[in-house]
Amino acid sequence: MSLEMRGIARKLRMAMVGGGPGSFIGPIHRIAAELDGQIELVAGAFSSDARRSLEAATRYGIAPSRAYPDYEALLERERCRPDSADLIAIVTPNHLHFPVAAAALQRGYHVISDKPATATLEEAEALANLVAESEGLYALTYTYTGYPMIRQARAMCAAGELGRIRKVVVEYVQGWLSQPVEASDQKQAAWRTDPGRAGIGGCIGDIGVHAFNLVEFVTGERISKLCADLSAIVDGRRLDDDCNLLVRLSGGAPGVIHTTQIAAGERNGLAICVFGEKGSLSWAQENPNVLNVSWPDRPVQTFHAGATYLAASAAGASRLPPGHPEGYLEAFANLYRDFAAAIRARETGNSEGCELVNDIAVGVRSMRFVEVAVAASREGRGWVTIS
Amino acid sequence: MSLEMRGIARKLRMAMVGGGPGSFIGPIHRIAAELDGQIELVAGAFSSDARRSLEAATRYGIAPSRAYPDYEALLERERCRPDSADLIAIVTPNHLHFPVAAAALQRGYHVISDKPATATLEEAEALANLVAESEGLYALTYTYTGYPMIRQARAMCAAGELGRIRKVVVEYVQGWLSQPVEASDQKQAAWRTDPGRAGIGGCIGDIGVHAFNLVEFVTGERISKLCADLSAIVDGRRLDDDCNLLVRLSGGAPGVIHTTQIAAGERNGLAICVFGEKGSLSWAQENPNVLNVSWPDRPVQTFHAGATYLAASAAGASRLPPGHPEGYLEAFANLYRDFAAAIRARETGNSEGCELVNDIAVGVRSMRFVEVAVAASREGRGWVTIS
Amino acid sequence: MSLEMRGIARKLRMAMVGGGPGSFIGPIHRIAAELDGQIELVAGAFSSDARRSLEAATRYGIAPSRAYPDYEALLERERCRPDSADLIAIVTPNHLHFPVAAAALQRGYHVISDKPATATLEEAEALANLVAESEGLYALTYTYTGYPMIRQARAMCAAGELGRIRKVVVEYVQGWLSQPVEASDQKQAAWRTDPGRAGIGGCIGDIGVHAFNLVEFVTGERISKLCADLSAIVDGRRLDDDCNLLVRLSGGAPGVIHTTQIAAGERNGLAICVFGEKGSLSWAQENPNVLNVSWPDRPVQTFHAGATYLAASAAGASRLPPGHPEGYLEAFANLYRDFAAAIRARETGNSEGCELVNDIAVGVRSMRFVEVAVAASREGRGWVTIS
Amino acid sequence: MSLEMRGIARKLRMAMVGGGPGSFIGPIHRIAAELDGQIELVAGAFSSDARRSLEAATRYGIAPSRAYPDYEALLERERCRPDSADLIAIVTPNHLHFPVAAAALQRGYHVISDKPATATLEEAEALANLVAESEGLYALTYTYTGYPMIRQARAMCAAGELGRIRKVVVEYVQGWLSQPVEASDQKQAAWRTDPGRAGIGGCIGDIGVHAFNLVEFVTGERISKLCADLSAIVDGRRLDDDCNLLVRLSGGAPGVIHTTQIAAGERNGLAICVFGEKGSLSWAQENPNVLNVSWPDRPVQTFHAGATYLAASAAGASRLPPGHPEGYLEAFANLYRDFAAAIRARETGNSEGCELVNDIAVGVRSMRFVEVAVAASREGRGWVTIS
Repeated sequence: MSLEMRGIARKLRMAMVGGGPGSFIGPIHRIAAELDGQIELVAGAFSSDARRSLEAATRYGIAPSRAYPDYEALLERERCRPDSADLIAIVTPNHLHFPVAAAALQRGYHVISDKPATATLEEAEALANLVAESEGLYALTYTYTGYPMIRQARAMCAAGELGRIRKVVVEYVQGWLSQPVEASDQKQAAWRTDPGRAGIGGCIGDIGVHAFNLVEFVTGERISKLCADLSAIVDGRRLDDDCNLLVRLSGGAPGVIHTTQIAAGERNGLAICVFGEKGSLSWAQENPNVLNVSWPDRPVQTFHAGATYLAASAAGASRLPPGHPEGYLEAFANLYRDFAAAIRARETGNSEGCELVNDIAVGVRSMRFVEVAVAASREGRGWVTIS
Repeated sequence: MSLEMRGIARKLRMAMVGGGPGSFIGPIHRIAAELDGQIELVAGAFSSDARRSLEAATRYGIAPSRAYPDYEALLERERCRPDSADLIAIVTPNHLHFPVAAAALQRGYHVISDKPATATLEEAEALANLVAESEGLYALTYTYTGYPMIRQARAMCAAGELGRIRKVVVEYVQGWLSQPVEASDQKQAAWRTDPGRAGIGGCIGDIGVHAFNLVEFVTGERISKLCADLSAIVDGRRLDDDCNLLVRLSGGAPGVIHTTQIAAGERNGLAICVFGEKGSLSWAQENPNVLNVSWPDRPVQTFHAGATYLAASAAGASRLPPGHPEGYLEAFANLYRDFAAAIRARETGNSEGCELVNDIAVGVRSMRFVEVAVAASREGRGWVTIS
Repeated sequence: MSLEMRGIARKLRMAMVGGGPGSFIGPIHRIAAELDGQIELVAGAFSSDARRSLEAATRYGIAPSRAYPDYEALLERERCRPDSADLIAIVTPNHLHFPVAAAALQRGYHVISDKPATATLEEAEALANLVAESEGLYALTYTYTGYPMIRQARAMCAAGELGRIRKVVVEYVQGWLSQPVEASDQKQAAWRTDPGRAGIGGCIGDIGVHAFNLVEFVTGERISKLCADLSAIVDGRRLDDDCNLLVRLSGGAPGVIHTTQIAAGERNGLAICVFGEKGSLSWAQENPNVLNVSWPDRPVQTFHAGATYLAASAAGASRLPPGHPEGYLEAFANLYRDFAAAIRARETGNSEGCELVNDIAVGVRSMRFVEVAVAASREGRGWVTIS
Repeated sequence: MSLEMRGIARKLRMAMVGGGPGSFIGPIHRIAAELDGQIELVAGAFSSDARRSLEAATRYGIAPSRAYPDYEALLERERCRPDSADLIAIVTPNHLHFPVAAAALQRGYHVISDKPATATLEEAEALANLVAESEGLYALTYTYTGYPMIRQARAMCAAGELGRIRKVVVEYVQGWLSQPVEASDQKQAAWRTDPGRAGIGGCIGDIGVHAFNLVEFVTGERISKLCADLSAIVDGRRLDDDCNLLVRLSGGAPGVIHTTQIAAGERNGLAICVFGEKGSLSWAQENPNVLNVSWPDRPVQTFHAGATYLAASAAGASRLPPGHPEGYLEAFANLYRDFAAAIRARETGNSEGCELVNDIAVGVRSMRFVEVAVAASREGRGWVTIS
C-alpha cells in the first residue's frame, strides 16, 4: 500500500494508556497511529495523576471528557459510548503492560502494546491464553520490523536468495545510559533501570529484545541456544546495561548479539548482518533506507526504499519514491497500518500485511529470551537452550 | 518545540485544492499538515472531476459534503460554515497556483502553497500585492528548509561560525525523467514537462528553485548574478530537464548550481556545500540527519539531528532523539508547524518560528530566478543580474 | 598485471630533476617509480643548490657522484656512463618543465613529467614537436588516471554500458590555500601562487587540469566549449584559487567543473559523476576503491577494486584483493608501471597498457584548456570554443 | 617520520624465505620493505623448488646467485658475503615460521615474520627464549597496527581521552573461504585450511589473531578471559572458518570478537569499536584513513590521516597530506620502517617508534589465545582464563 490509499469506511478509534507528560513513546504512538489517516486518537488514560492525564489530553487535542484518570475507568466507560474506542494502545512502563492488556482484551478491545509484552515470562504466557480466548486482536510494536528494508531483507531470506543462513550478527549500541542519569530527573532512565517497573532485564529487556526479534523476523529462523554475558557497567545500576551473547539459530548457524546502553556518545546504532551461502546482507537503522547485499563475483548491491524492484512487503512499506527519506516514525506507522489492516481483515477476510504483525507468540518468545539470558548470565552458565 | 507539545485551543482546519487520485504531493501535504496534531484536513476540491474529488475525499476520510467539484465552490461554501476551513493548501499543477491563491486570499483564508508560487514572475508579483492587502497569511512549502540540519546550517552561517561565505555549491540530481515518460501515462511527468501547466521552466522550475532557495536560506545572502546553461536533453521534451548555473552571491562569493532530472538511476540527490573563511559545511538530503563541518587543523565534525548541542531552530525541528531518523515527511511537517505557529501568532503576538516561513517574497525571488535563468540560457547571454 | 610480476630483464634506471628538500611530489615519484620493482632511482639534480641536491641524494640512498648540481650536468654526464639513466622524472615547479623535458628528449632520454606539461600553451606545442622527433617517450603523471576504479569507469563508458553520455560533473575541493600561506614559509604554496613559476593558472593549472583530464579520460569525449568564472578569493593572491566552469562535451552533453583551493578544512576532494542514457556512475578520490553505478529499476551497484568482475584495465591496476585498500601512491605507481611497459614495448612490440599513458597530446590539450579558461574568465566572455 | 626522510648511512639488506610464485604475502613484504627506501631485497629462498625460487628471484630483480634452494643454504651462504643480508623476512606457511626464525636468530640475523609467530604455543615460547638470547631483533607483521588511525586510537586510549575502557568490539568479516576453494587449485586456501601447515587454528589463527592483537594494541589492556564458539561451516573443512568470542579485558570490561571467512561476498571487513567512560571510537579497515570518535553532548569527530592535529605516533605513520589515501601497503611499510628504526637504534641508541614493534611477547600471547580458544570451543567450556 502506498500513499494511494484504499477507500476507508471510517477511521478506527484509539485510546491510549500511558503516554502522559514526559513520555517518550506516547507521542510517537499518536503520530504513528494517525499518520496514514486510518486511525484517530480519541481518548486516553495518559497518567495515573488525573490532572496530568487531562493536561495530556489537551495537548493531544482530545475532549476533556475522554481523559480518564486510570485505565479501568477508560475501558469501562468507553465501552458505553456509541463512538467507543476500538483499540487500546499501551505505552506505560513495562510492569503495567500485562494488567492493562489483560483487562482490555477481556472487554473485547483490540490491543497494541509497546514492547516487551509483559514484565515476566509467566505474564506473557498468561497473556497468550487471554489473546487466544479474546475477540480482540493483539500486536506488539517492535518498531524496527516496520522498516521497508528490513522487510526486504526478510523477503530475500524467505525466498532463499542468500541460500542457507550461515551466520547472523546484530549489534545495538546506545549511549544514553552511559552516566547514572536515573539518579537525576530523567524519567525514561528512572523506570527502565528499576526492576520494579522494568522487570528483570535492563538493556536486555529494553533493546536486547529488539535484536532478538530482528534476527527471527529477518531470517525466519528461531534462536535456539545462547551463551550470555550481561553486565551492569555503570556503578550502582541494578539492572544490566550491557549484553553480549553468542547464539545458535534453529538451522544450526552461529550468531552474535551485542547490545549496550553505556557507549558514551553513541545514538541508536542498531544493525544486522546476515551471511548466507550465496550472499550477505547488512542494514543499519541510522541509515535505514538502504540495504546492502554482497555477492561473490558480482558488485555489491544497494537496495533503496521506494524503488520499483523491491519485494511486495517492502514496496508496500514506503510512502515516498526513492531518495525521499522515511524514518523511525514511518516505520512505526507501518506497524499501526498493518494492525489496522488486520482489524479490518477480521471483518472482511482480507489479510494483506497481517503476517507481518508481531503477535503474542513473538511476545512470549522475547520474554523467554530475556529470562533465559538473565539467568544464564547470572549463574555463569555456558550454553543454554531456549525451550 | 518537541513532541512535548504546548496545549492547543483547537486544531486548525485545512482544505486542499488539488491532490486527487494520482497526485504525489497531495497525500504528503495531508500527512505533513496533520503530523503534529495541530491541523486537520476537513475539506477539499481534490480534482476538477467531481467524481474523482469525491473519491479522494473518501480516501482521506472526509465527509462527502465537503468534497467540492472546484476551488471556487470550496472557497465560497466553506466560508458559510461555522466550522469553516482556516487555511487552504494548494497542491495543483503550477498554472493554478496563482488563481487559487488569489481567490483564497481575497476571501481571507490563509494559504499554504506548493512551490513555485506561480507560473510566471508577473503572477508572483501580483500575488505579493494580494498578500500585502489580505488578512490571510501566505507560505510556500520549500520542503528542504524544513530539515533540522538545514536549519542548523543556516544558524551557523548567521552566527558567523564559518566566517565570511566564500563559495556555495548546490547540486540536485534526479533521474525520474531520464526517459520520455510524459509520453506514457505518468501524470507527474506529463504536467511538469508541459509549458501550459508547468510554466516556462521545467527542471529549473521544479527543482532548480529548491536549489536557489536553499542557497539563500542557508547563507542568508542573495544570488545576485547568474550565467545559465539549460538543456532539454531527452528528445522531444519541450522544457529544460537539465540546468547548470554559475552564480554570484550578494557578498561577492562565487557559486555553482547544477540540477538535473535525466540522471538515469539517480533518486533525489540534493546537496549543498558552503565554504567559509573559517570552515566548510556540507549536507545531503538523502542522508538528512547529519551535517558535516570541516575546520582547518581540527577534526571534521558531524552534527546529528536531535542532539543537545544544536541551535534552537534546529533542535526545535526534531521530534526524536539522535539516532532515530526523521525524513522528508517530518521536514514537510515542520513547514506546516511553523505556519500553524504563524497563524496562531497573528492572534497572540507570539512569533516563534515565523521567521522560518517561506513567504511570498521568497516566491517572487524564485520566479525571478526562473525567468532570468530561462531567458539568459535561451539567448546565450553570459552573466545576467537578478534585479 | 598483478603482484604476480612478469620476469624482467633489468630494472629501468631513473634520474630525477627537482624533488629536493621540501618537495611534496619528489618523494612520491620516487616511491611510485620503485613500487613495482621495475624502476630504480639512480641519479638526480634535486635542487639548483648543489649542497641541497647532495643532501637529497643521501636521503634517497643515491651515490654522491650521481647527485648533480643542475639538469644540464645530469643529462650530459649520465649519458657517458655505461649504467646511464634511461628515463628522466621532472618534478620541478611548472616553469622548468619545458626546458628540462626538451633537453632530455633531445638527448634521447625518456621523460616522465609532473603535470602540467609546460607553463604555457606555446611551450606545450613546441614540446609536442620535440616528442614527435625524439627517440624518447614522454608521459605526464595525471595521478588520478592511475586509480583502478577510474579505469573501470573509463572501460564502462567505452563499452557503452552507460549509453550515450548526457552530463558530466567534476568537483575538486581543497582547502590548503584557504589562508595566504604563500606569505609564510610554505614552499609549495609559494611557487604555486607565483605567476613566474606556476604560469598563468593557479587553481586552474594546479588542479583544474586534473578535473579537465579526468572528464576526457573517463568519457572518451573532448571538452569542446567552456564558460569560466575564475577568482582569486584570498586577498592579495595573484593567481586564481577558485574556478567554476560550465562546459560542453564533443558529443554535445553539458557539464560542470568546479575546483577550489580555498575551502577551509577540506582535503583533496576530487569527485566525478558521469550520467548516461542507461545509467550513472560516480567516484570520489578520498574513497577511491569503490565505484558506484546507478541504474533505473535495479539496485545501485558498488564495484570494488581488486574484484574478479572488473574490466581488464581496472583489474590490472590493483595489487591486492578486494578490501585491502590501495591509495594515491599505488595509483601513481600505476602511471610508472604503464610507462615502464611502454618503454619496454618500444623494444619488444608488446604494447599492453600503453594506451593509458597520458602523452604530450594530453599535455597540449590541458594547456589549451588553461589558456582558454583564464582568458575567457578575465575578459568576462561567455561561451568559448576550445579549438 | 614523513616523506622528508632522515639521511641514511646505507639501506638495510633483506632476504626472504617463502614468497615464491603464487604467494599472496611475499610480494607485499617486498613492496612494504622497500617503500621507504631504507631496506632492499637482495636475496631469497622463495620456494622449496629451486627452479621456482630462481624464477621468483628473476621477477624480484635479484641476482640468480642469491636465489637459494632452501633457507638453510640462504642463512649459511649469505653470512659469508661482505654484503650479507641483515634481516630475514619469513613469509612461508605457518608451520615453517618457527624453524626458519630459530635458525636465523641463532646465526644473528634480524627476523621479521608474518603472523602468527609459530604454529603452536610451545614453539612460540621456545622462540621467545631464542630471541632473548640472540643478537638479532624479532618482529611480527600484524599489518593493521601499521595504520595511522589505529595508532591514533591507541594514543587516545593511552592518554585517557576516552576515560576508562568499558567495552570493546572487534569484527573481522571475510568471504573468500565461503566455498570449499581449497579443493580446487587455490594455493592460499589450501595451506590455510590444512592443520599440517596452518596449525590448530583456521580462521582463529589466520584473522582471529589480528582481532585479538588489535584489541590489546589499541586499548593497552590484555584479554584475560574468553568464551569461544568456533565452527567449520563449510562442509568438509578441517579447521574452523568462523569464530565468535565473548571476552573480558584485564580492566574488567566486556568485549566481543567475531571473525569469519565464510561471509559470501564480503572482502576484508576488519573493524574495531572501543567504548570508554567519556567517549567512543570506531575504525574500519576498508576505509582506513578516518577514525570516528563520539562524545556525549558534542558533535561526532572524524580524524583524518595526515592531519596536523594527530598524536605523534599517528602523524608519523602517514606519508601524505590528508585526502591522499594510503592503504594496506603503506600500513605494512610502517611495520618495516619501525623495524628498520629499531635495528638502527640498537646501534645508535635512538629508539623512536620501537615501542610500536610487535615483538615475540605479542607472538606468544597470540598463540596462547589461539590454543585457549580452540580448546575451549572444542570442549564446550564456558569462560576460560588466558593465563
